[in-house]
Amino acid sequence: MSKEITASSVDYSQWYNDLVIKGELADYTVVRGCMVIKPYGFALWENMRDTLDRMFKDTGHVNAYFPLLIPKSFLSREAAHVEGFAKECAVVTHYRLKNDPDGNGVIVDPEAKLEEELIIRPTSETIIWNTYKTWIQSYRDLPLLINQWANVVRWEMRTRLFLRTSEFLWQEGHTAHATAQEAVEEATRMLDIYADFAENWMAMPVIKGVKTAGERFAGAVETYCIEALMQDGKALQAGTSHFLGQNFAKAFEVTFSDKTNKLDYVWATSWGVTTRLIGALVMVHSDDEGLILPPRIAPLQVVIIPIYKGEEQKKLIDEKVNELVSQLKSKGIRVKYDDGDNQRPGWKFAQYELKGVPVRLAIGARDLEKNLIEIARRDTREKYSVSMDDLSVTIVSVLDEIQQAMFNKALSFREGHITKVDTWDEFEKVLQEKGGFISAHWDGTTETEEKIKELTKATIRCIPLDNPQEAGSCVLTGKPSSERVLFAVAY
Amino acid sequence: MSKEITASSVDYSQWYNDLVIKGELADYTVVRGCMVIKPYGFALWENMRDTLDRMFKDTGHVNAYFPLLIPKSFLSREAAHVEGFAKECAVVTHYRLKNDPDGNGVIVDPEAKLEEELIIRPTSETIIWNTYKTWIQSYRDLPLLINQWANVVRWEMRTRLFLRTSEFLWQEGHTAHATAQEAVEEATRMLDIYADFAENWMAMPVIKGVKTAGERFAGAVETYCIEALMQDGKALQAGTSHFLGQNFAKAFEVTFSDKTNKLDYVWATSWGVTTRLIGALVMVHSDDEGLILPPRIAPLQVVIIPIYKGEEQKKLIDEKVNELVSQLKSKGIRVKYDDGDNQRPGWKFAQYELKGVPVRLAIGARDLEKNLIEIARRDTREKYSVSMDDLSVTIVSVLDEIQQAMFNKALSFREGHITKVDTWDEFEKVLQEKGGFISAHWDGTTETEEKIKELTKATIRCIPLDNPQEAGSCVLTGKPSSERVLFAVAY
Repeated sequence: MSKEITASSVDYSQWYNDLVIKGELADYTVVRGCMVIKPYGFALWENMRDTLDRMFKDTGHVNAYFPLLIPKSFLSREAAHVEGFAKECAVVTHYRLKNDPDGNGVIVDPEAKLEEELIIRPTSETIIWNTYKTWIQSYRDLPLLINQWANVVRWEMRTRLFLRTSEFLWQEGHTAHATAQEAVEEATRMLDIYADFAENWMAMPVIKGVKTAGERFAGAVETYCIEALMQDGKALQAGTSHFLGQNFAKAFEVTFSDKTNKLDYVWATSWGVTTRLIGALVMVHSDDEGLILPPRIAPLQVVIIPIYKGEEQKKLIDEKVNELVSQLKSKGIRVKYDDGDNQRPGWKFAQYELKGVPVRLAIGARDLEKNLIEIARRDTREKYSVSMDDLSVTIVSVLDEIQQAMFNKALSFREGHITKVDTWDEFEKVLQEKGGFISAHWDGTTETEEKIKELTKATIRCIPLDNPQEAGSCVLTGKPSSERVLFAVAY
Repeated sequence: MSKEITASSVDYSQWYNDLVIKGELADYTVVRGCMVIKPYGFALWENMRDTLDRMFKDTGHVNAYFPLLIPKSFLSREAAHVEGFAKECAVVTHYRLKNDPDGNGVIVDPEAKLEEELIIRPTSETIIWNTYKTWIQSYRDLPLLINQWANVVRWEMRTRLFLRTSEFLWQEGHTAHATAQEAVEEATRMLDIYADFAENWMAMPVIKGVKTAGERFAGAVETYCIEALMQDGKALQAGTSHFLGQNFAKAFEVTFSDKTNKLDYVWATSWGVTTRLIGALVMVHSDDEGLILPPRIAPLQVVIIPIYKGEEQKKLIDEKVNELVSQLKSKGIRVKYDDGDNQRPGWKFAQYELKGVPVRLAIGARDLEKNLIEIARRDTREKYSVSMDDLSVTIVSVLDEIQQAMFNKALSFREGHITKVDTWDEFEKVLQEKGGFISAHWDGTTETEEKIKELTKATIRCIPLDNPQEAGSCVLTGKPSSERVLFAVAY
């Protein structure tokens, strides 16, 4: 095939890379582990970001911006937090370069050494809670519902575009509350928003659950998560929302006086999703022809390609298409008329398939005569002709259909890949031959969880919310268990 | 005064700080030179950012995202560039922390030293042009019109909120062109957009010009700028747009083949505005009562405050105001009904004056009977009653009037502070007693420019575009000159 995309059945990982790079979403850079998000990928991120931002604002959150650099000592304030993040920090030790006396470019000026090193934020709980100390005195200052869109750096040894990069973009919400109950409600409210976004905008079904102690965020009391399933049968954590208890309030001495004038530590949540979601989007929907983007967040929803011989035909087509384009735009549809004459229609068809544009319209001289236009759906690759009358109404409904069909397809794949398993042999067999989520009993200990990871690479992705209680015995140890949990090998 | 804002006549610098901090735009943090942009300040930045982003997109630009970290050696590739930026870089030398063996928190792991240090971007020409090398081969890849919204770090020894901070937010456009002429056109197009934004959205008049060689961006062939005048008579550079010639293309070996298959280096521009604009906005419009924000970018345009005794009156007012609020919202007006009962109306009035909300509406029981509502304009502090019929129409026109009046006031101040000066005595006198821009002849040498700076702190802010040619003699050296330039002491 001219696009030179590796088939997913041949090499899934190479298929993914081909889609990201040839689909012009992102690329590697000379800086180890750091990617460049290319304009097409960034337009996708903008649509995702703007949608989430609206959802956050609709639920009373406001944006702010906190420093990129955090004093090294802040990390150690919260005991679990430092264990989780110290190992992967980019550390700023100096603040000046100078000319190399040997004439070889520039060197670090040894005299410009910082008294205390600064780390580039891997996440912002510490600097934010240190700031909240001065913002919160009374229950009247609560709740504080703040979100930040930012870049963060976690030094990764093995990186993959979008899925695991040293620098990535994300949003991090950091809220402060007067009671534990309010904070838990906030954490689950944000989880619901993430699930809503994943399912209704990304067309990606997710399972809402809580993490086990072993998989919890460093410093959290409870970590809620949404888990998605990729087409290769691996799971991907798509978003997390943490109930932090009073851990950070205690570490940074953030107290408030309640209505009775009693002092107490503030209750906290934090929650985030990242550019990793783009990686998930690629892996949930795409095929060997390229990306398949859900209409609601696709940078381009409709592309129109003219098929003509000679300027006269072109002129007639142009006239009609310009009319159609303005009709479509008036319905808020993101549409492009690609009448460039550098490439043939077939080449363009392949390009827009690669880029995952949901709907392609092709129009030729004969179509024009018959008042017809050809619709090609990217998701099903179906092609059929429709009348050009009321085309915008037709297109709106096709886009809706595609959005729903993509979700249904992914859901049915996911439902077909949750396997109940009751023995260890079966566990290993399903994991190896089928993949997906395994629903199995577990004895509740971190020890067993780690042992299973060691043996199979599978981890407990989550304990689903509203999980049915059911007596059983642990798939590995045979010890008693009261509910099944979801295992999978994960990204 | 209860707000405790230092009068600008007493201490201009403290007045500015009071406005920024008490107006809840931003605050200092424990990290030297880094600020936190608070929700109210960030909402203002969002309005500015979204407006500019729309203007960029309307002129064919797209957004992308490049790495935060840049290999140290990249800086040295362009000779002038390294001189300009090496001195103020945050340098990442290590990528891991570890537990202190002495038990004192965490220390930098000496084994995790980077082979080549990375610097946090002070600006992105180097990393971007290194990337463009792989994106540009042919004239068909040009022009490349890319913008990035990002954070940058320049280590500053003396910092001021918004005006000069070690980390700040900005946008940086980086475009690539086939000819010098196209690149110059792009640089001036973006300057026009900046001027349009400053004047028509920020209500801040600016002078468009070019910088002298001494004030040029490190690596530019020509730097275009917009210069604004603050109420204390100091100038502020509000945006710059650079024609970079082929300097970065040569440094990073970015060539393209033209239509005749001839290889040439690519022509470049870069252009940026930063959160510094917020500092300018504060200093151009505010008074001793607080901020005064132009309606088109104010986070909140209208606040409504009820004045009542007892629940019965409150209920009647609520009913009417809810109706008014939805009328106003339907016109796209950003409005808030502040009926909180924690504070008295007078306290609220002062608060919203401090925050610079353009229009305050107050409504009491007697107003309700008469179908009247009281309007208070923040800019002129005028108060008058209007009919509640068609209130949204009235408000739209008041907001327009305020926007225009704020611009006119700032323009008339600026026009009154451009002084033509022909002798050195006069130059020093005007600078000391009146401030503002001084329009004077200059002999065109960097030497004289530096001498004047040494003597007076004044720099050449710009040579205005379309500057009238006029024979004269340099205000310091008496040497011949063909045009006047604008001097000022600047932020």
